Amino acid sequence: MSKIVQPRTLSGFMELLPKEQILFNNMKEKIKAAYERFGFLPLDTPVVELSEVLLAKAGGETEKQIYSFQKGEHNLSLRFDLTVPLAKYVAMHQGELAFPFRRYQIGKVYRGERAQAGRFREFYQCDIDIIGDETLSLIYDSEIPSIIYNIFKELKLGDFTICMNNRKLLNGLFASLGLSEIASDVMRIIDKLEKIGKENVIAELKELGVSKEAIDKVMDFIAIQGSTGEVIEALEGLQIQNEVFVEGLAQLKEVTENVKLFGVPEENFKIDLTIARGLDYYTGTVYETFLNDYRQIGSICSGGRYENLAEFYTTKKLPGVGISIGLTRLFYQLNELGILEEAKKSISDVLVVPAFDEIKQAIVISNQLREAGINTESYLNDKKLKAKMKYADKLDIPFLVIIGEEELKENLVSLKNMLTGEQVKVSLEQAINMIKKER
Amino acid sequence: MSKIVQPRTLSGFMELLPKEQILFNNMKEKIKAAYERFGFLPLDTPVVELSEVLLAKAGGETEKQIYSFQKGEHNLSLRFDLTVPLAKYVAMHQGELAFPFRRYQIGKVYRGERAQAGRFREFYQCDIDIIGDETLSLIYDSEIPSIIYNIFKELKLGDFTICMNNRKLLNGLFASLGLSEIASDVMRIIDKLEKIGKENVIAELKELGVSKEAIDKVMDFIAIQGSTGEVIEALEGLQIQNEVFVEGLAQLKEVTENVKLFGVPEENFKIDLTIARGLDYYTGTVYETFLNDYRQIGSICSGGRYENLAEFYTTKKLPGVGISIGLTRLFYQLNELGILEEAKKSISDVLVVPAFDEIKQAIVISNQLREAGINTESYLNDKKLKAKMKYADKLDIPFLVIIGEEELKENLVSLKNMLTGEQVKVSLEQAINMIKKER
Repeated sequence: MSKIVQPRTLSGFMELLPKEQILFNNMKEKIKAAYERFGFLPLDTPVVELSEVLLAKAGGETEKQIYSFQKGEHNLSLRFDLTVPLAKYVAMHQGELAFPFRRYQIGKVYRGERAQAGRFREFYQCDIDIIGDETLSLIYDSEIPSIIYNIFKELKLGDFTICMNNRKLLNGLFASLGLSEIASDVMRIIDKLEKIGKENVIAELKELGVSKEAIDKVMDFIAIQGSTGEVIEALEGLQIQNEVFVEGLAQLKEVTENVKLFGVPEENFKIDLTIARGLDYYTGTVYETFLNDYRQIGSICSGGRYENLAEFYTTKKLPGVGISIGLTRLFYQLNELGILEEAKKSISDVLVVPAFDEIKQAIVISNQLREAGINTESYLNDKKLKAKMKYADKLDIPFLVIIGEEELKENLVSLKNMLTGEQVKVSLEQAINMIKKER
Repeated sequence: MSKIVQPRTLSGFMELLPKEQILFNNMKEKIKAAYERFGFLPLDTPVVELSEVLLAKAGGETEKQIYSFQKGEHNLSLRFDLTVPLAKYVAMHQGELAFPFRRYQIGKVYRGERAQAGRFREFYQCDIDIIGDETLSLIYDSEIPSIIYNIFKELKLGDFTICMNNRKLLNGLFASLGLSEIASDVMRIIDKLEKIGKENVIAELKELGVSKEAIDKVMDFIAIQGSTGEVIEALEGLQIQNEVFVEGLAQLKEVTENVKLFGVPEENFKIDLTIARGLDYYTGTVYETFLNDYRQIGSICSGGRYENLAEFYTTKKLPGVGISIGLTRLFYQLNELGILEEAKKSISDVLVVPAFDEIKQAIVISNQLREAGINTESYLNDKKLKAKMKYADKLDIPFLVIIGEEELKENLVSLKNMLTGEQVKVSLEQAINMIKKER
């Protein structure tokens, strides 16, 4: 007898039961299908990279969270996002890619964060980016919200709002107030508005040494609200002459106007001047997406425009725009809220069961069901019919095809709808049609 | 200017260009669809596990290849296969699962092997297993070849043969020859027959201390060939009375007879008594699969029946049968041989291009194409028409929809078939039908 090791999974690593896994995969598949619908190319980079390459840019908090280790002569790290591997990839293969390079990647990333509910150390990111060769037209900034819109409409999570802003507005405002030197600190604080509230933001800005006048102007600025037209008008009314501000305003105006062209209804997007995105990385348009009824779970899809994807790997300028969905965390939160789509929780459309020992006939009928394109499982273990039905019930398989002595004699099958309990004796062809209709 | 780090990918880690990635994903999707067609449930366990758990059973060569590292108080390892995580999972969740538990998992695993062509340190495994609760009917051993058959028929890699054997035959034979003590060594040597040839196998067996008489009997045994019926007859003719041998022969006879029932044509499977599978783990039926025209690349899908999945984690007996496809290696070899299916190398079905600056109309038409279920990319960067067409060509996008001044006036679009070069002016509806027909 071997020694028993207690089987367990690391905390912070999601591992689902089959029914939840099916729901998770449904979401993942829908995101993938939407990305492909918009012509993004698949990419699948390694989980493990040379630390020197992966951490070329990292530092501070990020670096502390990395899973790094020595193997032979190499220091290796697990990827902590999908953006750095993309930068590496584009820098390596720039001669072989067609630009604008549109890629999606859906994969696991690793961060050794403090374990707590809703925080994961291994989690899926679902990313798209459009990368230009030296330049990338601003019109792509308007395409991104239409992709977000298509995904979340398809996922059926209720009403949602895509919030947009432009980093140049904030940068220009700060410049006009003499805050440029501490712009990224100010932005980081503003970004927390939702989380910590107005009073705390003011307190933190004061602590940073920002003057009362400047704080007032910043708070006035981020208080601007309304329809996209109203916000643009209010921003124009501020009469800020700073060049960067003026450019940001023109971009935001153009981008939000064009979003409508891409078929996104007005009620699904707005300008939100409080959105800055904590990362220094973004330089223009920024996006966050919220479920209207569950704003407390934070942004479920974020991203923006950046000047230069891969400056740590190449001297070539590679501007881009992209978004990311943190699927593991999103799934966890939706599951906690109990608002996951309950539609399809079974892989099999039908379970074929021999009533007694009609195993061979059950196999042949299973083959025929599969040939008709139906996901079919044959229950072949030697158990009582009741146990077989319990199995179908436990797996939420919607149909049962029962093959008994009587059915064989009449060349029919018994088709049981597991939801309604209704059972009919029909030909296999009729059964196939009835199963297909219900899928 | 930041310091430039040379971007590079670790050797032994596959990273594909988009067109190859599309072909890779097509294969992965087809395998997944086939697994789901047979009602297997998805599972997605972490890549990182506690070393104590993951290595409960490992030892020797396997353990040396593991990527292990310390993070905080834990010693962690990257999974080296999908079987150990499955064992852990079933042991942990046995009360919540329905048995027989049919699961598939497609994911990356890690082995720090010596890097060489065709050997990967990160590679995909595509596994299925059917796990019984205390018992699992032998009929499932016959279902497995029908799944293999469906997958490789779908992948269109030419003719293939599923080779089957039963470990009990070999074990029984060895017992009858007094070789039981060194059975696993003998099997390991026999398993190399294909690779090192008959003479070397005999030499290695001699070196192991096996008598000439025993070697002769073993070599006679593994030389038996023919149709499944002929092989069974020849085995019966050996008149070996050993109990284990007799049981193995009865199982092999039953399993191969039932394989036909599952719709696998006779030309796609056979008994091959030389197949032993190196792992001690298998206890009954074993499978290997070969491409008839490319036997040299080795087995492309292997597996078998085992007594007990999770003896290191639970005292509950969990017999099972399963197979694994090493997709990364298979893809690499098919690509090297130049026999990858060339059908669909593009994600987008159509590229919409404004002839000059009809960008807005191109966007609206792109929306309509997507709503019709067509993967559509809009080329919106400000380039000459020729550059736009070159882009479509480089990405192998099969259709171009061109929106020019003239087309707009007539409320038509120009549809160009990129393969034939043919260009027609049609209504958008006609264009949609023509694109859909060609997909």
